[in-house]
Amino acid sequence: MDQPDPLTVTVDLGDRSYPIRIGRGLLGRPGLLEAFLTGSRALVVTNEIVGARYLDRTLAGLPAHVRADVMQLPDGEAFKTLATFSDIIDRLVSGRHERGTTIIALGGGVVGDVAGFAAAAYQRGVAYIQVPTTLLALVDSSVGGKTAVNHPGGKNLVGAFYQPRCVVADLDTLDTLPDRELRAGLAEVIKYGVIFDAEFFDWIEAHVGELLARDKEALGHAVARSCEIKAEVVRADERESGVRMILNYGHTFGHALEAVTGYRSLLHGEAVAIGMVIAADLAARLGMLPAASATRIRDVLIAAGLPAVPPPAADPDAVLEAMGMDKKVADGRIRLVLPQRIGAVGVTDQVPTTAIADALAAAR
Amino acid sequence: MDQPDPLTVTVDLGDRSYPIRIGRGLLGRPGLLEAFLTGSRALVVTNEIVGARYLDRTLAGLPAHVRADVMQLPDGEAFKTLATFSDIIDRLVSGRHERGTTIIALGGGVVGDVAGFAAAAYQRGVAYIQVPTTLLALVDSSVGGKTAVNHPGGKNLVGAFYQPRCVVADLDTLDTLPDRELRAGLAEVIKYGVIFDAEFFDWIEAHVGELLARDKEALGHAVARSCEIKAEVVRADERESGVRMILNYGHTFGHALEAVTGYRSLLHGEAVAIGMVIAADLAARLGMLPAASATRIRDVLIAAGLPAVPPPAADPDAVLEAMGMDKKVADGRIRLVLPQRIGAVGVTDQVPTTAIADALAAAR
Repeated sequence: MDQPDPLTVTVDLGDRSYPIRIGRGLLGRPGLLEAFLTGSRALVVTNEIVGARYLDRTLAGLPAHVRADVMQLPDGEAFKTLATFSDIIDRLVSGRHERGTTIIALGGGVVGDVAGFAAAAYQRGVAYIQVPTTLLALVDSSVGGKTAVNHPGGKNLVGAFYQPRCVVADLDTLDTLPDRELRAGLAEVIKYGVIFDAEFFDWIEAHVGELLARDKEALGHAVARSCEIKAEVVRADERESGVRMILNYGHTFGHALEAVTGYRSLLHGEAVAIGMVIAADLAARLGMLPAASATRIRDVLIAAGLPAVPPPAADPDAVLEAMGMDKKVADGRIRLVLPQRIGAVGVTDQVPTTAIADALAAAR
Repeated sequence: MDQPDPLTVTVDLGDRSYPIRIGRGLLGRPGLLEAFLTGSRALVVTNEIVGARYLDRTLAGLPAHVRADVMQLPDGEAFKTLATFSDIIDRLVSGRHERGTTIIALGGGVVGDVAGFAAAAYQRGVAYIQVPTTLLALVDSSVGGKTAVNHPGGKNLVGAFYQPRCVVADLDTLDTLPDRELRAGLAEVIKYGVIFDAEFFDWIEAHVGELLARDKEALGHAVARSCEIKAEVVRADERESGVRMILNYGHTFGHALEAVTGYRSLLHGEAVAIGMVIAADLAARLGMLPAASATRIRDVLIAAGLPAVPPPAADPDAVLEAMGMDKKVADGRIRLVLPQRIGAVGVTDQVPTTAIADALAAAR
């Protein structure tokens, strides 16, 4: 093979540790999955669009002794439901998959979240391999073991913390990613710089052009460093009782914006980008963050082609109300992640509702 | 209070350790749950029959600051389904329960299994307290963290390993347990003697009359020793990859008998009793167990009022076929737990199918 060896980021979680292999031409590379497929059966879960492009390559990379079934879901967040979860379970049962089977999730966050929850729950847990094919899934869902489905009452309300055996991050799958989804993924990359690593933030500012042009070397570094940062945070707090909360920077506002716009007009990464801008502005208003730093955060998001203001349809009062329903809220108080400087954030539940309302109003 | 302090068995699982409080008059005892209800909300899940008897007492034992909702399920294994799981989730969402809520399962194995899985999955895990009200649930589901629902294709096919914060085992709730269910629970008690503790087996032989007469002191000892044994096995193997398999003694045959009789004519404990007799007989036929020990196992089960032979409707060939679908089977081989002497069992997948078929035929 003339492909270089993949980069490996290890997610260090004791006996649940696993590697993320990052590189080009990984799908279909013989031997890459061999060590992780100990049984003789597998179920590849994908969606129609990703499956049409990458299913053959994925199946070609499976060891010869593995008999793989395939389940193609319709594309879209609308199918990240208990009903789809139940369909995957039905498929595992009707295919007589036993405890030794492996579920391979080939796709973006929706496929990974629902297939991962099925892997967590089927027979109380079978092996699970993630093959993320969007930038957002590469830098977000490939680390942390969060699996879930949505409920009409809220996103990700039903799920499990469940770690994969390995993650295969083939950068070539990003070639076919729509521009808008690439940019939405960059929002999370930028988030890692803000919450944890000023040097990485500087690097993103300097390389945002290459990232948008899908330069593989730049993308490889962005993915690897993002995964490293997330892995470090998750290792310290696997079940999200403390420090892991910092990963929610931009997400409390972001989730509310998604909710009030009916999960239609904004991609998750776009909503998070707007949420990061609002949270940075709020931090600056409260004197927690220099105004110049808030400006840098907004500017790099705009340079990455991301929205920085809520859509006109997002009424500030409705957003505030939606935040009151956010599942990160402990006993009715709104807990927010606010930047203290580029590279460090704090968690506080002491922000007056009026200050939050002001920041929302100013963001229009 | 003139009630004695409860016995406590600690299930030692590191940061997931929890106590089982065993005694009389525990439901409604002030302060017993205080330390485990850290949030201000709770959902008590029960069924119509248990709820009518013990719900008021349970609610009276909750700290004053806790606002409890109640969900009463219909009674019966038929409702241990993904649909019921989904109903519980709906109830949690519509009641705006947050991450700090606690699910309290008041009832037998069905209530505990489905409410426990809901606790495991809601917001990826909320606090969970078990109040088992059947002998089977007291000695089986209160230790081990197994939660699950059934699937048309098999029992317990969807679930999670999820530990409760504590278990309240109020022996007074056994007063209203039907005789047949009491006996079914004794099958599991006897199992613990066979697989782990010859002295306990001797004690059961000597006290089976008191147990059937619901003598509280005898029941307290039987429950505590059963929980201790199960806790010791589970501690060594929380996720059932090795030694925990010995808890399945009688269960591979038992599950198959339940399946071929449509989960109607046999209670789980009754099927396990028959399974223990068949497995002991098979072990004796293979020269692994003295015939006299197999006889003792059968005799104590009969003394406890349990069936020792399969119902006429259970065709041996159908049972064998059902065993081929058992989820404990690794890559199509049948793994069996067979007694080596009273107090010790071994796990083997080397038993020829013909020997299994002979034991099934002889059991009729």
